[in-house]
Amino acid sequence: MSTIYEHRRTALAQYLSEQEIEIAMITDPANVFYYSGFNSEPHERFMSLMIDTRVEQTILFVPALDKSAAEAVTDVTTIIPISDEQVPFEVVSNALSNDAKLFGVEKKSLNLFRYDSLRAFFPQAEVVDIQPFTDELRMRKSREEIELMQNAINIIEKVLAEGIKKVKVGMTELELTAEFETLMRELGADGPSFSTIVLSGEKAALPHGTPGDRQFQEGDFLLIDMGVVKDGYCSDTTRTFIIGEPTEKQKEIYDIVLKSNQAGINAVKAGVALKTFDIAARDVIANEGYDEYFNNRVGHGLGIEVHEEPSVHKNNENIANEGLVFTIEPGIYIPEYGGVRIEDTVYINEKGEAEVLTSFPRELQTL
Amino acid sequence: MSTIYEHRRTALAQYLSEQEIEIAMITDPANVFYYSGFNSEPHERFMSLMIDTRVEQTILFVPALDKSAAEAVTDVTTIIPISDEQVPFEVVSNALSNDAKLFGVEKKSLNLFRYDSLRAFFPQAEVVDIQPFTDELRMRKSREEIELMQNAINIIEKVLAEGIKKVKVGMTELELTAEFETLMRELGADGPSFSTIVLSGEKAALPHGTPGDRQFQEGDFLLIDMGVVKDGYCSDTTRTFIIGEPTEKQKEIYDIVLKSNQAGINAVKAGVALKTFDIAARDVIANEGYDEYFNNRVGHGLGIEVHEEPSVHKNNENIANEGLVFTIEPGIYIPEYGGVRIEDTVYINEKGEAEVLTSFPRELQTL
Repeated sequence: MSTIYEHRRTALAQYLSEQEIEIAMITDPANVFYYSGFNSEPHERFMSLMIDTRVEQTILFVPALDKSAAEAVTDVTTIIPISDEQVPFEVVSNALSNDAKLFGVEKKSLNLFRYDSLRAFFPQAEVVDIQPFTDELRMRKSREEIELMQNAINIIEKVLAEGIKKVKVGMTELELTAEFETLMRELGADGPSFSTIVLSGEKAALPHGTPGDRQFQEGDFLLIDMGVVKDGYCSDTTRTFIIGEPTEKQKEIYDIVLKSNQAGINAVKAGVALKTFDIAARDVIANEGYDEYFNNRVGHGLGIEVHEEPSVHKNNENIANEGLVFTIEPGIYIPEYGGVRIEDTVYINEKGEAEVLTSFPRELQTL
Repeated sequence: MSTIYEHRRTALAQYLSEQEIEIAMITDPANVFYYSGFNSEPHERFMSLMIDTRVEQTILFVPALDKSAAEAVTDVTTIIPISDEQVPFEVVSNALSNDAKLFGVEKKSLNLFRYDSLRAFFPQAEVVDIQPFTDELRMRKSREEIELMQNAINIIEKVLAEGIKKVKVGMTELELTAEFETLMRELGADGPSFSTIVLSGEKAALPHGTPGDRQFQEGDFLLIDMGVVKDGYCSDTTRTFIIGEPTEKQKEIYDIVLKSNQAGINAVKAGVALKTFDIAARDVIANEGYDEYFNNRVGHGLGIEVHEEPSVHKNNENIANEGLVFTIEPGIYIPEYGGVRIEDTVYINEKGEAEVLTSFPRELQTL
């Protein structure tokens, strides 16, 4: 029985043949996982899954110290370790015949340093970008992948529900962050999918701020944006709370963001341009006069990586297809005052309809 | 008074002038921090510090949502935000005169996708690698940087000392990992510097394994490799323990790794090739017949990044200079049996002598 990874490699190999690309050189760790089942961050070391269509050979090159870990999980039978003393492309050129001319690479993953080294060992090498093909394949999530993502989302919702019970005036952002990260592990996550964001009061106006020593006060916005990795798939959810009694202005802002979130989600379906969803959410905020305080895209794809294709912004003319998973996360961020973001994950299912994978309540909650 | 960042930019600008490079385009986030004080991971978004020597202008391009965060910390006065709907190099080309010909880039940071985009907006652009210059500058740490690193090391040592008190038979690797990560926050870390490694029993044979549900048992090796980021600088320390009574073979292996660690550290000084330190540590293990179980380099540089220059491996002929900071971390990893690693951080000080920054005891400890 062939594995899901083999299915994906077969699809890639067929594309390579059609395009007359001799060798695929997959170096993005997320794609190596997608095509081989080996999920590893090699940092500065070289790791690549190569498919040589000339001889129908698949080779997984891994840092020597990861060899056993790779063998334990991948269905790729040829694994070649590269030790720290070796020059990666020297090892590669010994494994492949070095008269190879056309390499398919991910241009967003291959840096100029590696490219120069490739050219040094394969003097005739030309590269062509196969990232769009892989992006397209990865964007169309299967039901099995959605189940994995749902697991990751369910975990973060439980973490959020448990964690906010501990919020009290005087607690710091970092203390609450530590509570959340402990809960992630306890509730079965493999780890956070990104650096947990807990921002309070005026700091909630920073879309990418980092938690610090600020203590929670009565009347604070409390913005929590976090996710976990579970079995290779990520979640990413934001909710904003108020500590104590909200003011009228806080309620107003929250309400606008909630309506914007709903308008964005309601717009989601297959067959229309991705920008539609951004614009639907953005118009709500603009109509209330807060557009200057919403200066980022409404969402991003999510899956093996916490940010992947598609990018849901107001100029993206690409058509939304079945299988896409992305966030809808409008926000209003007022410098020196505070901010609100409500972020959900949406899947366009086999019927072309939106399924909202996030189920944590969206209504304003006070803590 | 000029800042440390300005000093560094001045050094870079002087190098650019000497090399007749018109524009430096710094895109590695660690280097953007090094030269501007703004420490941020833009993920797939574009961030760059550019120094245009033709007009003596310095511009920090940041994702729009990071603008306030950048303004709060950097001494660079011109900050240009790039929103998600914009094409980064279009914004760049509007800010710089697009007849620029020679760009200094970090070839390990600039991917082919961005390179193609650069060439599309600057048709005459050629690139030259300025990474070696920046690496060289970053490698020579100042006393102030060593103090920051010492803080990060002190925190992880306290985390380790507190955390191992909680170890007991039946606890899982993930539970202990959660304890450590909570302690990191409580003890003042900004976060872990990499994904915490807690491996027990035969899993300790995996140099880069990930913590799982395995429960601690009597007689286990317990390998703990972790670090924190504090104020932009990283620590990275490994100790291996035995749960309960060690066997003779466990003691033997531990002893060899400890001797290897000491031999590596004792070899460290300025003026000799970096390979000397790897070989000194490796010889101890080889002489005892375990060389096949030590298949990675003895160490790596450490600083703003948890892995940076230099790479301390047996073929590195580069001369060790004052200011270098790197790990010495020999290990013996026996598949299906277990492993031991002892990792310390060493600084080559102004006199060319080794200062060991790690002070956690190295002798075999049973828990």
